[in-house]
Amino acid sequence: MENRDIYLDNSATTMAFPEVCELVGRTMSTLYGNPSSLHSKGMAAAAEIKTARERIAKTLKCEEKEIVFTSCGTEADNLAIIGGALANSRAGKHLITSSIEHPAVLNSMKTLEDLGFEVTYLPVDETARIRLSDLEAAIRPDTILVSLMYINNEVGSVMPIAEAGALIKRVNPRTLFHVDAVQAYGKRVIKPSAEKIDMLSASGHKIHAGKGVGFLYIRTGVKVKPLMVGGGQQKGMRSGTENVPGIAAMGLASQMLYKNIAEDLDRLYELKEYFISQVSTIEGAYVNGLTGRDSAPHVISVSFSGIKSQVFLNALNQKGIYVSSGSACSTNHPGISDTLKAMGVKKELLDSTIRFSMSVFTAKEDLDYTLESIREVLPMLRKFTKR
Amino acid sequence: MENRDIYLDNSATTMAFPEVCELVGRTMSTLYGNPSSLHSKGMAAAAEIKTARERIAKTLKCEEKEIVFTSCGTEADNLAIIGGALANSRAGKHLITSSIEHPAVLNSMKTLEDLGFEVTYLPVDETARIRLSDLEAAIRPDTILVSLMYINNEVGSVMPIAEAGALIKRVNPRTLFHVDAVQAYGKRVIKPSAEKIDMLSASGHKIHAGKGVGFLYIRTGVKVKPLMVGGGQQKGMRSGTENVPGIAAMGLASQMLYKNIAEDLDRLYELKEYFISQVSTIEGAYVNGLTGRDSAPHVISVSFSGIKSQVFLNALNQKGIYVSSGSACSTNHPGISDTLKAMGVKKELLDSTIRFSMSVFTAKEDLDYTLESIREVLPMLRKFTKR
Repeated sequence: MENRDIYLDNSATTMAFPEVCELVGRTMSTLYGNPSSLHSKGMAAAAEIKTARERIAKTLKCEEKEIVFTSCGTEADNLAIIGGALANSRAGKHLITSSIEHPAVLNSMKTLEDLGFEVTYLPVDETARIRLSDLEAAIRPDTILVSLMYINNEVGSVMPIAEAGALIKRVNPRTLFHVDAVQAYGKRVIKPSAEKIDMLSASGHKIHAGKGVGFLYIRTGVKVKPLMVGGGQQKGMRSGTENVPGIAAMGLASQMLYKNIAEDLDRLYELKEYFISQVSTIEGAYVNGLTGRDSAPHVISVSFSGIKSQVFLNALNQKGIYVSSGSACSTNHPGISDTLKAMGVKKELLDSTIRFSMSVFTAKEDLDYTLESIREVLPMLRKFTKR
Repeated sequence: MENRDIYLDNSATTMAFPEVCELVGRTMSTLYGNPSSLHSKGMAAAAEIKTARERIAKTLKCEEKEIVFTSCGTEADNLAIIGGALANSRAGKHLITSSIEHPAVLNSMKTLEDLGFEVTYLPVDETARIRLSDLEAAIRPDTILVSLMYINNEVGSVMPIAEAGALIKRVNPRTLFHVDAVQAYGKRVIKPSAEKIDMLSASGHKIHAGKGVGFLYIRTGVKVKPLMVGGGQQKGMRSGTENVPGIAAMGLASQMLYKNIAEDLDRLYELKEYFISQVSTIEGAYVNGLTGRDSAPHVISVSFSGIKSQVFLNALNQKGIYVSSGSACSTNHPGISDTLKAMGVKKELLDSTIRFSMSVFTAKEDLDYTLESIREVLPMLRKFTKR
């Protein structure tokens, strides 16, 4: 069995598309003007931003002016939640989220709690999804914002976003609905207006656009207080010279991912089903969360009994297979999964869980090699693991 | 006279070094791991950040851990001023800055004023520099932070930073000193510890590193409240997956600019002197601010009487020469220079001012072509301009 390079950690970050790398190089070396400059080099840079905006707006069926570019998904989440709460605090000081959100959301909520806001954290069921009845019960007249992730980053469950959106607007039409779509954008057809989403966060490096860029969709009419102040770029919503190469990259990658999304998703769901059917035959392997179309097309969380995930990760690394033990989005406690705990996964499996996450570059052969490697190293590792 | 491409707007933004473009492409396509990931792809990405940190620390003679990467100079300024004030508000609520700072600084101060802080804005003299006596008089026992730009972005005057640093620490050793070095880093040897600088902002796209990255030097022991919350990256000082390509670019460009900085600065100052000596012979042309070593090596501000700067900018654009009429860092009022007003430049020249800003790529031939073009178009434009 030869050594290959199998990257199955695409929920942590992705390789940039070659076309994106080419565009970034061109933007940095040729289209390098400042979009605020009044000469033709500046106008050419501003045109790149406009193109990116158009491309992204098309994927969401929204207006160009509803896209605000940020430096990452974290900034988009911070802007939506902190900026959204600060701009709407006259209507109330209560927010709702789930207990398994990304730290960018949970820590934005903590920041608001320090400022006197009140936050309700909804529990999740064994599939890592909130119950709509819990959400309905939590909405109050002074609830100004609900923030939910579209696809969970650790097990890939899809939250009932459209149902939640309809519910929120029925119970309290003034409550804003923010969706952290960092794991969902590019892997699902999302229509904010139909799903009653007021704000939606996305990140470039999860969609082959490279690191250092993200965006926040803000529905026209929604008030958000800018967090970054300065020269008034992006109509004052996000000061700082625009990251033209990153923005152009985000636009191109978005366009590429949504071009044949139906076929690409079919293929990924097939791969996922295949991998699950195979990995399930391994003794002591348990697939976590939902499978099929209620789950993300690219994320598969598997607990392997009797083995430390970090040890397993290292052994697979030796084979050229890159996977994740935690969410890798947090540097604080990479090994422990808050989501799995909240889902009620057995204690002895909590630290025995591996996340495999695919991309459009993943091939069936990659999965076969991975399955083969798991079968090869697992018995050895179990032998040496203390029970 | 043939048409060439002469970019003299390097204070607005710069072309990335070819070596930087190459590194960014490699980082996006090969070293694309998430620095928080525990496999070798993640570790390789983390190593890129460490290298960049080392390279930058070397240019400032500081420690690696004193560098916090941001998404731009604006974010670095926001973090230093808002984050610095929030973390130190127990010691007082008074801040000092100058009246000609970049909007990223002035609007950070405004944000703090809304939160109950008090800000003193120091005036500048006809050279666009604050008077040290004004600074001394403004420092109070409750002054927690002074923020001054190192090099003015509109006329290139160099603030007396080392003198200000010594003065601040003598009058109130607890007062923090933040320096916005966005126009100075890469164009001057800066030693924060010797100059008593506690925090220093820099921007990638002003130093041929591309857009979407910056850094804030924070002296060990200085307390700053993070503005972006989430996964706890960069020891909690700046959450969000690190922009590895941008950070690597910043490190490489810093290293390249400081490699032969003494020689490069000599050459730029010679070019500047040459341009000034030539442009001064043109009727009705007035050079603003300081010249020589008390001024930036790369910025030359010239007022041309009897002509609208935007008209002149457009005419030069036609010749393939890219210059600026305002600072181009602000999208709000690109044509009007707050700095020139504060310096006391005559009203009739305020809207007749052009900023020429050079880089290491600028050659004497570029300046000759520019001078020739000015001499060619100026009489025609003056003829058609209403007096």
